[in-house]
Amino acid sequence: MIQQQDFGRVTLPAEEGCAERVGALARLMGADAIRNSDGTRLDEETLRLGLKIYSTYFVSRGKNHFAKDHKEERQHIYLLTPRYTAEKETLEIPLMEGFLSEQVSPDYDHSPAVFWEVRDRTEGRVIPPQEWQVQPEQGAVRLSRAEPYHEYTVAFLAWADWDPTQMYNYITNDWQGVEKDIPYDLRQPAAAAFAPAELSGWLEEHPEVDVVRFTTFLYHFTLLFSPRRKEKYVDWFGYGFAVSPEALEAFSAEYGYSLTPEDFVDEGYYNSPFRVPNRAFRDFMSFTERFVCAKARELVAITHQKGREAMMFLGDTWIGAEPYGREFPSIGLDAVVGSVGNGTTLRMLSEIRGVRYTEARFLPYFFPDVFREGGDPVREARECWLSARRAMMVKPVDRIGYGGYPSLAMQFPDFLKYMERVAKEFRKIYNSIYGCRPSAGLRVGIINSWGELRSWQTHMVAHAIPYAKTAPYTGILEALSGLPVEVSFLSLSRIAEEGIPQGVDVLLNAGEAGTAFSGGKEWEDPRLICRIRRFVREGGGLIGIGEPSAYPKNGRYFQLADLLGVEREMGFSLSANKPWHPVCTHHFITEELSGAPNLGEDVSFVYPLSEETEILCQSGESVRLAANRAGRGRGVYLSGLPFSAENTRLLLRALYWAAGKEKEFFRYLSKNPACEAFFYPQKKLFAVLNQTALPQQTVLLDGRGKETVLSLAPEEIYWGCMTE
Amino acid sequence: MIQQQDFGRVTLPAEEGCAERVGALARLMGADAIRNSDGTRLDEETLRLGLKIYSTYFVSRGKNHFAKDHKEERQHIYLLTPRYTAEKETLEIPLMEGFLSEQVSPDYDHSPAVFWEVRDRTEGRVIPPQEWQVQPEQGAVRLSRAEPYHEYTVAFLAWADWDPTQMYNYITNDWQGVEKDIPYDLRQPAAAAFAPAELSGWLEEHPEVDVVRFTTFLYHFTLLFSPRRKEKYVDWFGYGFAVSPEALEAFSAEYGYSLTPEDFVDEGYYNSPFRVPNRAFRDFMSFTERFVCAKARELVAITHQKGREAMMFLGDTWIGAEPYGREFPSIGLDAVVGSVGNGTTLRMLSEIRGVRYTEARFLPYFFPDVFREGGDPVREARECWLSARRAMMVKPVDRIGYGGYPSLAMQFPDFLKYMERVAKEFRKIYNSIYGCRPSAGLRVGIINSWGELRSWQTHMVAHAIPYAKTAPYTGILEALSGLPVEVSFLSLSRIAEEGIPQGVDVLLNAGEAGTAFSGGKEWEDPRLICRIRRFVREGGGLIGIGEPSAYPKNGRYFQLADLLGVEREMGFSLSANKPWHPVCTHHFITEELSGAPNLGEDVSFVYPLSEETEILCQSGESVRLAANRAGRGRGVYLSGLPFSAENTRLLLRALYWAAGKEKEFFRYLSKNPACEAFFYPQKKLFAVLNQTALPQQTVLLDGRGKETVLSLAPEEIYWGCMTE
Repeated sequence: MIQQQDFGRVTLPAEEGCAERVGALARLMGADAIRNSDGTRLDEETLRLGLKIYSTYFVSRGKNHFAKDHKEERQHIYLLTPRYTAEKETLEIPLMEGFLSEQVSPDYDHSPAVFWEVRDRTEGRVIPPQEWQVQPEQGAVRLSRAEPYHEYTVAFLAWADWDPTQMYNYITNDWQGVEKDIPYDLRQPAAAAFAPAELSGWLEEHPEVDVVRFTTFLYHFTLLFSPRRKEKYVDWFGYGFAVSPEALEAFSAEYGYSLTPEDFVDEGYYNSPFRVPNRAFRDFMSFTERFVCAKARELVAITHQKGREAMMFLGDTWIGAEPYGREFPSIGLDAVVGSVGNGTTLRMLSEIRGVRYTEARFLPYFFPDVFREGGDPVREARECWLSARRAMMVKPVDRIGYGGYPSLAMQFPDFLKYMERVAKEFRKIYNSIYGCRPSAGLRVGIINSWGELRSWQTHMVAHAIPYAKTAPYTGILEALSGLPVEVSFLSLSRIAEEGIPQGVDVLLNAGEAGTAFSGGKEWEDPRLICRIRRFVREGGGLIGIGEPSAYPKNGRYFQLADLLGVEREMGFSLSANKPWHPVCTHHFITEELSGAPNLGEDVSFVYPLSEETEILCQSGESVRLAANRAGRGRGVYLSGLPFSAENTRLLLRALYWAAGKEKEFFRYLSKNPACEAFFYPQKKLFAVLNQTALPQQTVLLDGRGKETVLSLAPEEIYWGCMTE
Repeated sequence: MIQQQDFGRVTLPAEEGCAERVGALARLMGADAIRNSDGTRLDEETLRLGLKIYSTYFVSRGKNHFAKDHKEERQHIYLLTPRYTAEKETLEIPLMEGFLSEQVSPDYDHSPAVFWEVRDRTEGRVIPPQEWQVQPEQGAVRLSRAEPYHEYTVAFLAWADWDPTQMYNYITNDWQGVEKDIPYDLRQPAAAAFAPAELSGWLEEHPEVDVVRFTTFLYHFTLLFSPRRKEKYVDWFGYGFAVSPEALEAFSAEYGYSLTPEDFVDEGYYNSPFRVPNRAFRDFMSFTERFVCAKARELVAITHQKGREAMMFLGDTWIGAEPYGREFPSIGLDAVVGSVGNGTTLRMLSEIRGVRYTEARFLPYFFPDVFREGGDPVREARECWLSARRAMMVKPVDRIGYGGYPSLAMQFPDFLKYMERVAKEFRKIYNSIYGCRPSAGLRVGIINSWGELRSWQTHMVAHAIPYAKTAPYTGILEALSGLPVEVSFLSLSRIAEEGIPQGVDVLLNAGEAGTAFSGGKEWEDPRLICRIRRFVREGGGLIGIGEPSAYPKNGRYFQLADLLGVEREMGFSLSANKPWHPVCTHHFITEELSGAPNLGEDVSFVYPLSEETEILCQSGESVRLAANRAGRGRGVYLSGLPFSAENTRLLLRALYWAAGKEKEFFRYLSKNPACEAFFYPQKKLFAVLNQTALPQQTVLLDGRGKETVLSLAPEEIYWGCMTE
């Protein structure tokens, strides 16, 4: 089957009563599997198509008959009220202001004096329980000895009454007559007994299902709605729903210290992945991870016992099943499936270890928002496929698929044609390069607070849509996702402890000051600074983007300023003249640029640290791109890197320059940056991708000094044989 | 003399051998005084013109016969070397890298082990003197037990060998055959005895001098040059040259603790006025102030004994003679003179208390850079005068003057005409409003770390030229300098201790995060926050500009976000949806704007804190202007306020709105913002200034509800009588 170009490796969505159309689409795309989803059912005709059957399965919701009988086993979350200003000694703080009462409600059953925390946010002080009373009738907490003009908050334990994804679908699609799914907690005795039994029973009842698509395991990522039923808070990495009185107790028994409500509400930032994680949160993540993975292992074992495959959906209720976590392989899953909108999300999936295969759910979904008169589904499909396929060239997923309603897709013949092409091109790539990676000239280590745990997830936010604040950074992984370089993710704390792993050529630190991606307070550790300083001065490379190593201390803002050759003026050294000097117009890094590169929003007032810093691009009073030598090594600074073909090439050149390997840059190369080349010496194959909608010509350097001129049709992948 | 419109209150520069031309210029402008300056001499013919004579006098330099005999009494300064990275256990740090050896040299005579400090800047640790040795021959310090890959600096005591202003003039004008002035320290015994005796003798020898213009007293502001003889570091407020081993000893005897080299070099920031001053620096300033003022008092007393006037030049060697310091009036000066380029510098001078009169030296100086073929001295004079005269309407200086070479000015007839006009207009203003201030509808308190001590000096940098980083803030004082509102400067620490003075309507906090002007770590003090919160919630107003009250703590970046109605996203709450809502298009504050105001560089990602915040101007994902109600009071946020007539009116409206006094805004008003009105009920006078080069029409509201239409010629000041 691996050798088949026309069939397999594709999953389609089912649609009730549309078996014929589903069948036609399956034949067109060579699909070999079909899946239902939240709200769809597989009918008899569809089952008769002879395709492999996936079925969605919910572990901790969707069983309201159980949940209603065990309301005491509902899930929990810590919520933080807004800040209220005291004007006199008494202050009443309403608990539910800003929250949706259908979704969450205060838990008065577990003693608030034990589980809640009232804080003076002006002083950062905990108010002892004797100084406040809960008023359940008013849904409020009343302070009796408040300090006038201080602000106060209550962090309270709340019940989770409605599964967030179902809530989202329910509200967005205005569902009528559907019950609200109550999420229950497998840490509780009844739920712990119920879930495996329920799965066993369900498997018995559904012999047609080949693949159980877990959606997902125990705890949903943090998604809170406002009283107006609009999104209020969404953190795809949020561990908020994993808390419970029982979890807190088990945690302190295991770790020897107790978590506080503040460890969860985190001054109102709720441990966003942009926060440098503190010890309590790291411990709680790891604690949750072990619990979730153990429970998942049980469920997967049952699935296997019944002769089915177990697939995890990387989304929704995935918290604790970190795909790059230490526990993940122990679950024993067959597969992971996830939504893919670009190269970064593709690599996030395809690099997961501990599963037999990975599957990408591509955009667009066959939904009426895109599949309507005047809609352009081909454009969306093309954007998604072009960005994903270059990542495939480095490490492909094993399967692809789509979602939505096939009947809608069938109305768009151009789209169907494109789908057919995607499926074929995917199979061609997969079958050609299976089991090997393209020749990589460099090893790049992305360094931040998260390290390996959040491989291919840096600066990722809900729904993989960048925020304005993350756009200057998301281009980095997107560029790297389809570059023939080895990428690893290294945590700053591990570098501080153990140093930089052997073989890494260039370290890359990117992000905004204070965040987990730049590193924030981790730069207080002199060991970290010295490890990197030694690495670079002994010949390594460092690339800093945005506010790398930013942490105002000891007279520096960029702690690695000496390596990067630039520092940021924060207002304290305005009186010192800066060693400004002319922009260097000829440099390896900028050689291919036609004009000033688009390096995102300006990071203001970055200045050269010395005359030796090579300023490669400058706007106003700010360096945007610079190259610097430190000892035997090199540093490069960029203000940002939004994704584009030009910036991808710029980054690749910066990496080679920083590594001191400029010559090797020319070993395997497509000279035209619009075409990207990948060489697979193991398979004696190469491929050149025209990533544009125009014909392109490029000169190929084949690793042996030979130049070949190639002409490529729009979007063509040119496959060639490497000659001896 | 006060009533004379044609004569007096004007000082001109002398020019050797040009008495006739000086006389002609004096008659034209009605000048009654003449002055020499650094490098000019008053000749006999000039003395015979019958004008009052000012003469420059240097207290601590310009007497090299003394200085050379007492080289041990030279002044000192603490210098900090660049950071050097250790690669092994030994590290040699050259001391003079980056400094000009003609200007400063290491002081090896006072024990380096006692007076110098070597620091590990990677750890922020002091290295004990046993671990380093001074190598005077190499001009270096050698560390014997350095930690590889740590960075090190040496803070060393240096001799000051060349007076900075003379050095500047000497190098800029390429003087030949002139001796380099060695600055000596009046804290030393010989200099202490020499200076008063020298002044006495000089006064005896110069009976023609009526006014001794001290330029100035003991210590020059910090100005350091690089080995290439270019400006390296300049801080007009810098106390660096006030240090000496003797000062350190006297300080510790008085204060009970010792200052360290780090207290002076301050991580390399040298206590820039943008740094929130710490206790050591505050104490050293006050210590120096008392010493300088005591010495100045002696010199002024001698001057008075000899029947002359004593005038201080606010510049050059003015350190310790803070014009808004507690000690200043005790000096007993007759006058202060200073350079004035705009309204802010005018008010900085005119508001000084403890002198009989103040004098403004206006731009342009009659120097060949402007007074050349193709030069436009009238433009410069006009800009200076127009901005200064609106400040004069609130509080005039008592005299004005010019500098440079009268012979140059005489060659520009248009300029002479303008000069004549300025002199007349100044005298008209002065004589009309002498002794009273315009009716002010508001009291504004500027709040920052410096408070009263640096009245009218916030965000001021060397030469009163704004940096890009200060431009968004310098417009605030410039606007206020000519607005009929009362302005006071309040320090944050005093507010924390004592609260907000009675009668203040609106507080204004403006600056970049972390700086002394925004307040930085002072916002750690809950008392400060609560005082302001109470003030506003009880009905007061607050205006925040740029990054007001910015200090990341307790879940807030803007500590006063609740009052301002806005907060800045620093990357930690990206997951929380912000209460964005449509821009409010009708509001008292923005009523007169024709389009989007120019509010300077964007402060990115400022968002509304609630639906109630009125967004008045927004660019992209950032609020630029907002209005908010908090309790009975109000807050206004502005991202910046570069100076313009439109922004001046905007600020005035924001102030009235914040104070809740919108009605009173219309009491005394020129409706056309290009014309500014000032009412002096005490004198039954009003004046309207057309600040443009075009004719203007405006409607005047006269305080009694009467509207008068006025037509004004370009730049005209219209004087009218207030009727009963």
